[in-house]
Amino acid sequence: MSDIGLYDAMSTLRAVRRLKPDPIPEAVLERVLKAATWAPTGGNTQPWRVILVQDEAKRRRLQELYIGPWKQYAKGHSAGIAHLEGEVRAKQERMIAAADHLAEHLHEAPAILVFCFEPGRMAITDAGLDRPSVVGGGSVYPAVQNALLACRAEGLGCTLTTLLCFAEPEVKSLLDIPDAWYTCAYVPIGYPSSKGHGPISRRPVAKMAFRDSWGEPF
Amino acid sequence: MSDIGLYDAMSTLRAVRRLKPDPIPEAVLERVLKAATWAPTGGNTQPWRVILVQDEAKRRRLQELYIGPWKQYAKGHSAGIAHLEGEVRAKQERMIAAADHLAEHLHEAPAILVFCFEPGRMAITDAGLDRPSVVGGGSVYPAVQNALLACRAEGLGCTLTTLLCFAEPEVKSLLDIPDAWYTCAYVPIGYPSSKGHGPISRRPVAKMAFRDSWGEPF
Repeated sequence: MSDIGLYDAMSTLRAVRRLKPDPIPEAVLERVLKAATWAPTGGNTQPWRVILVQDEAKRRRLQELYIGPWKQYAKGHSAGIAHLEGEVRAKQERMIAAADHLAEHLHEAPAILVFCFEPGRMAITDAGLDRPSVVGGGSVYPAVQNALLACRAEGLGCTLTTLLCFAEPEVKSLLDIPDAWYTCAYVPIGYPSSKGHGPISRRPVAKMAFRDSWGEPF
Repeated sequence: MSDIGLYDAMSTLRAVRRLKPDPIPEAVLERVLKAATWAPTGGNTQPWRVILVQDEAKRRRLQELYIGPWKQYAKGHSAGIAHLEGEVRAKQERMIAAADHLAEHLHEAPAILVFCFEPGRMAITDAGLDRPSVVGGGSVYPAVQNALLACRAEGLGCTLTTLLCFAEPEVKSLLDIPDAWYTCAYVPIGYPSSKGHGPISRRPVAKMAFRDSWGEPF
């Protein structure tokens, strides 16, 4: 296995939503999962686990649970882009079409990674603040990002979704997830059936980073 | 700049808490910040920003705000490892000593990255569930992880901390962060004064990953 360059992997990791059903070799899956384990977590407690779902009936059930929340989300998203024009709008519409495809074909991905976490093992430092808490995510999404980057390295398409949190009780029952554990990321993976990884669209550093004070250009 | 291999970077990215005050070249900082911008976010909204704090007075103030929450956390952590023995305990004690050093010298790091997020731009799919929400973190910690990996590539020590969320109102005031934005990650960076990056201790894949059902070995 050749080790892709770090910056090369990061700068070409994009959501790949059209996947072939072809099986993924065990050694490849192992490298993707191992990459996830390398991620940092608060106090190195590693308060996450991942279930690799390959079972056909379970993938089908995940697809059935996914389609409803996706259609709901897509409706809102479509309304939100109605004011856009030209290439900006066309790009959004292509994204929606690809995500529609994923929602219809989720079960055809040869594997779906379901990341779980246990809040009891996390020091959630923003739990007491009067705003949505996100810090628990700091001990699991770095692992998810490592897995996504490893997929990129292995030529596997993937995308991070969280819509199945809307059906979390059903997912927990389907996958025998213990009471104290919950789900936070769902990553269908498979070899790309279309273009796969490549250039990404992101805001430039000048719009994302400041120096010393909010609003001061980096 | 040479591009380190992805797996090489991930597998040797460890918390580096002893940092030299030496300045970091602008081109290096730019690459680290650019790597962060490449990360995926829900709906590609990129609902995060980062403030690179180099101003000496502001770093000093962040250190003053950090030391209290750290001492509180360390007290709990020390109690939690009191039952451990031998090398396992010694390793925890070395971690605490390094983190103590960081807390005393935070302001000496040449730069501190303060990651901010705007919940209003996030679809937090687990907000309605009867358990701690983490999904908002899915649109910012992948960017943080990219920044950490880029630091690794550049030979910069770094570590992700969230303890300053306990002092978030003071931090927001110090850095002029708008009302609707909050903080979720603080990353002091600098060249290592001690060993720097290297081997990491993580649970093996067999303990972190299951196949098809919770508890079923991968």
